[in-house]
Amino acid sequence: MSLAISTRLAELGHVLPAAAAPAARYRATVRVGDLLFVSGQISEIDGEPAFIGRLGEGLGVAEGVRAAESAALGLLAQIAASVGDRVSAVRQVVRLGVFVAAAPGFTEASAVANGASALIEAVFGDAVGGHARAAIGVATLPAGVAVEVDAILQLAEPG
Amino acid sequence: MSLAISTRLAELGHVLPAAAAPAARYRATVRVGDLLFVSGQISEIDGEPAFIGRLGEGLGVAEGVRAAESAALGLLAQIAASVGDRVSAVRQVVRLGVFVAAAPGFTEASAVANGASALIEAVFGDAVGGHARAAIGVATLPAGVAVEVDAILQLAEPG
Amino acid sequence: MSLAISTRLAELGHVLPAAAAPAARYRATVRVGDLLFVSGQISEIDGEPAFIGRLGEGLGVAEGVRAAESAALGLLAQIAASVGDRVSAVRQVVRLGVFVAAAPGFTEASAVANGASALIEAVFGDAVGGHARAAIGVATLPAGVAVEVDAILQLAEPG
Repeated sequence: MSLAISTRLAELGHVLPAAAAPAARYRATVRVGDLLFVSGQISEIDGEPAFIGRLGEGLGVAEGVRAAESAALGLLAQIAASVGDRVSAVRQVVRLGVFVAAAPGFTEASAVANGASALIEAVFGDAVGGHARAAIGVATLPAGVAVEVDAILQLAEPG
Repeated sequence: MSLAISTRLAELGHVLPAAAAPAARYRATVRVGDLLFVSGQISEIDGEPAFIGRLGEGLGVAEGVRAAESAALGLLAQIAASVGDRVSAVRQVVRLGVFVAAAPGFTEASAVANGASALIEAVFGDAVGGHARAAIGVATLPAGVAVEVDAILQLAEPG
Repeated sequence: MSLAISTRLAELGHVLPAAAAPAARYRATVRVGDLLFVSGQISEIDGEPAFIGRLGEGLGVAEGVRAAESAALGLLAQIAASVGDRVSAVRQVVRLGVFVAAAPGFTEASAVANGASALIEAVFGDAVGGHARAAIGVATLPAGVAVEVDAILQLAEPG
């Protein structure tokens, strides 16, 4: 039997959140062939936008890492809602886009982004979970959160 | 006979603009398999960069929504120029990337991005037009415009 | 015999750098089917982050163009490391994402991005090297560099 994403998260000390409904006019996920595109997920706690503020201005790297981790939990929730709560549903994590709200002079977007990357790799393992990434410091994010992460994944079963 | 994108836009009160020539050294669209990648289209009116400024600083959400809508019109112009002025040429809108020039403290990038998402869904219908999305607030955009939108689409006919 | 990327670069007056190890928890490249996703590469000289600062604030367009070119050299190094130092390994450059660290008011991200686009097109030729692009001005980039570029390519041989 395939390991559940929620079970693997529990082993890592996390709870799989409910998949957030899109905040606006778009879909949480779109599948095309064997690729799954997941919309940007913002940092949240208990379904509410969290880690409000910008890195380098009120928020430090440690909080940014946790914000990125929470956004990655949101990605996992969307993946589970879309293709099932099974680690094996994902053949390869392809790319994460990590957007970090950053004050001028903040240069550690990469360290913050590791909060998302590390969780995704821990859940899927290094081979499947290893991904290409672009991490950038942006001006602002929806709801004033510190981090947003989107994803492209390859699924185990073609659509 | 297939509905024209230009006809559907007219029903919605819009005019399909001419496809903008790339402002620099890149292509407006690239096709790979059944995917069409459309370069970032900036907000324009009558072929000229428009909605100059940043959201939360001179430009309000209502103007931002119209800026996003104009960028989406630019996407539609590129799609029509690339694969024909037919709604049915698109099998699925996969992803929109929405970049909103934002002053510090502007937290409504998602509301602005809806201007693009709503138009795309209105043209293609909810099923085909529904898309994944990432909306972020950026520092600046080419020509000083307020909104830029790029897209990935799945086409009805493989290349 | 296929032309080497390094040879073509030498003809253009450039040296293919060593592929940078990912600065953090991600992979430099991920392949899915015939697509290669390349992680964001920052502007570098001799393997060190370079062109530190923001455009429109200490750095001018000419320096930005060279920064973008150096990031494109990083992409080429990753491509060569992943699929071999052969121009013919790439069937089509699909998309470049160009992130330009920009002070408020800087509106020439597109001109800066041309530094990357022009080099990629020179190496692969107009047909193969022509690509879709989104160029945006961001708040900050990892290590404080001026430019980061990521890429999606179609390979000549499916994986």
